[in-house]
Amino acid sequence: MNEYCVATYRLFDDAASFDKKAEGIALGLTIGSWTDLPEAKKASMEKHLGRVLSVDVHESDEPGKRYADIAIGYPDVNFSHDIAALLVTVFGKLSMDGRIKLIDLSWSTSFQHAFQGPKFGIEGVRSLLSVHDRPLLMSIFKSVIGHDLDGLREQFYQQALGGVDLIKDDEILFENPLTPIQDRVRTCMEAAKQAQEMTGKSLLYATNLTGPVFKLREQALWAIDAGANALLFNVLGYGYDALHELSADPEIAVPILAHPALAGAMYPSIDQGISAKVLLGKLMRLAGADLVLFPSPYGSVTMPKEDNQGIKAACIDDTLPMKSSFPVPSAGIHPALVPVIVEDFGLDVVVNAGGGVHGHPMGTASGGKAFVQAIDAVMQQVPLEEAAKQHPELQVALERWGKK
Amino acid sequence: MNEYCVATYRLFDDAASFDKKAEGIALGLTIGSWTDLPEAKKASMEKHLGRVLSVDVHESDEPGKRYADIAIGYPDVNFSHDIAALLVTVFGKLSMDGRIKLIDLSWSTSFQHAFQGPKFGIEGVRSLLSVHDRPLLMSIFKSVIGHDLDGLREQFYQQALGGVDLIKDDEILFENPLTPIQDRVRTCMEAAKQAQEMTGKSLLYATNLTGPVFKLREQALWAIDAGANALLFNVLGYGYDALHELSADPEIAVPILAHPALAGAMYPSIDQGISAKVLLGKLMRLAGADLVLFPSPYGSVTMPKEDNQGIKAACIDDTLPMKSSFPVPSAGIHPALVPVIVEDFGLDVVVNAGGGVHGHPMGTASGGKAFVQAIDAVMQQVPLEEAAKQHPELQVALERWGKK
Repeated sequence: MNEYCVATYRLFDDAASFDKKAEGIALGLTIGSWTDLPEAKKASMEKHLGRVLSVDVHESDEPGKRYADIAIGYPDVNFSHDIAALLVTVFGKLSMDGRIKLIDLSWSTSFQHAFQGPKFGIEGVRSLLSVHDRPLLMSIFKSVIGHDLDGLREQFYQQALGGVDLIKDDEILFENPLTPIQDRVRTCMEAAKQAQEMTGKSLLYATNLTGPVFKLREQALWAIDAGANALLFNVLGYGYDALHELSADPEIAVPILAHPALAGAMYPSIDQGISAKVLLGKLMRLAGADLVLFPSPYGSVTMPKEDNQGIKAACIDDTLPMKSSFPVPSAGIHPALVPVIVEDFGLDVVVNAGGGVHGHPMGTASGGKAFVQAIDAVMQQVPLEEAAKQHPELQVALERWGKK
Repeated sequence: MNEYCVATYRLFDDAASFDKKAEGIALGLTIGSWTDLPEAKKASMEKHLGRVLSVDVHESDEPGKRYADIAIGYPDVNFSHDIAALLVTVFGKLSMDGRIKLIDLSWSTSFQHAFQGPKFGIEGVRSLLSVHDRPLLMSIFKSVIGHDLDGLREQFYQQALGGVDLIKDDEILFENPLTPIQDRVRTCMEAAKQAQEMTGKSLLYATNLTGPVFKLREQALWAIDAGANALLFNVLGYGYDALHELSADPEIAVPILAHPALAGAMYPSIDQGISAKVLLGKLMRLAGADLVLFPSPYGSVTMPKEDNQGIKAACIDDTLPMKSSFPVPSAGIHPALVPVIVEDFGLDVVVNAGGGVHGHPMGTASGGKAFVQAIDAVMQQVPLEEAAKQHPELQVALERWGKK
């Protein structure tokens, strides 16, 4: 029985002949030619032939122009079961062929079998933190470059004191002499322990996994050896397959947080590139991201809400036989937004803030506390303004960033 | 002495305050904040601070709109010397920050020191083929998926008989049971040898290196062990660093041909993504591509001529302390185009054809011969129409594809 992976494209060129264009793609990206084949050969080649599954033509906003969404099925038998092969097959050459965007991608059961998905997923990350009933809270270092271990430790400690569940490195913190990964992990995990004595809460610290690609596994083990209990990874700098192999490795038994760095080179254009849902949702989860960062629709670095919802849906789609990925909408987050975030994403979301923690007028620890208070209020269905009467940190945050 | 890598962006948003935006990038992507720093700390942080090198504001084609090209210097000391770190630093988060395109990128001497560039380069590839004085000729299989070893062998043999210098796998030929890489290499190299008895010419066969990223080195050695004398690699599916590490490996002593698959997800948009010159020129060469494929400006899958020239300039820029990469403009190439290709690219170019070889009315071998004849004619400064009088293959090709 033949199985197919299905790519859906939005085509803006060749408005007169979308059906023909679709047939050309299905043939050109698989067996190349059909009519030239001897009849005897057609029987053996048919299972390699791409299929046009649908062609939906729409009126464009440009007067007199049309565009089409076309879905093509690619036989599994044509490519190996890795994400590089899938992407090169469905959008390698085609990405360079005019105004065309890859807007959706799904895969067959047999392709799926090569992937186990996230090792922890939403439930696994919740179990590590023993937090099952509310959004998680993550904070980001204010600045990391040029700081030494003492500087990092102090920032980490203040964040941990605020009661956050996760702290992540900045994605631009690479291996460096001031804060090499093992020292950084040891220092920060000590600060976490010290803070835990005050807060009673444990946390995950996602340290940035960087370096030469063939040494990533070794580097991950090196970080874990020093006590790292989570990893941050710039997936698009290394390809999805690197994430997949790290995630599938039984020795790398910590959650991996996928950073979207470089994704903006591909998703924002209307008529080129790859949709945010595919790039940051479907493929991140398939490759094994336990948590996925992406630009929130709330701040200055924003992503359209529709893209956000596409990513969220892909992260938690329960028809897939694998664990879910935690959506982490990021940038521009402050405590007053917590109700909106929960409205948009539900409870299975990580509230992630940088400036919204460190910029708190009472300091970083208070910034974290204000978020904790906001999350508690939302869980108790108490309006933030009401809760703020009992909580000076939240009160000050609402004054600083507005009531909504 | 501080060294900087320099990224140049084209910005389309915030037309009122390009200087401020530039300062925000230089600060935001390095130390994060400056005015908040204690005076004593500024001294130690200054070497980590990004620098605005230039802000050039231009009138846009849209009435009343402007755009700006801004150049930012990023201190080397901030990132490790690998391409993932460089890209994540200069365009990780920034790629998602509105209408912005990375249009140029250059690196410091100290960054350069971590890279040896192409192992063979133009001269090295020429030496392997003992061809020093003319464009090289490459051909591509007509179709590969679904064919067995006999089918591949016959296609390969016909191409080799035509007298081509290089033959490349299709980029969508992955590891598969019909033509596994070692068998494929052995079969094709035997066919090459057999053809050489007829033509007297040796050739390079670039077999497609695919599979899980952490096994690529092993897979490359496995192919070389079977006799592979060149490799094709889908660089953007795996990240530049994978190419760099393969190319730098002394045991992988064969030229690597970089395929541009997926590049179209990033370069074509005016106001998003990464320019073709950076993606397919500068970074491919830095990472060690001996030959670089890209869409020619001549065929159906085309790239603007300006982008082509940018890639070419980056491939052969002789101010860089490394070997050059062979430019391989591809798609839509037929023998009548050879004079144009030489005019556009000079003699250090690979003439690369698929349909222009296999579609020859006298067959594949004649298709190759027509190209060889066209190249000879150009080298002797004989008009193709003139040369065609002595060469039926060229004559038929000119009739088939037009005289120019």
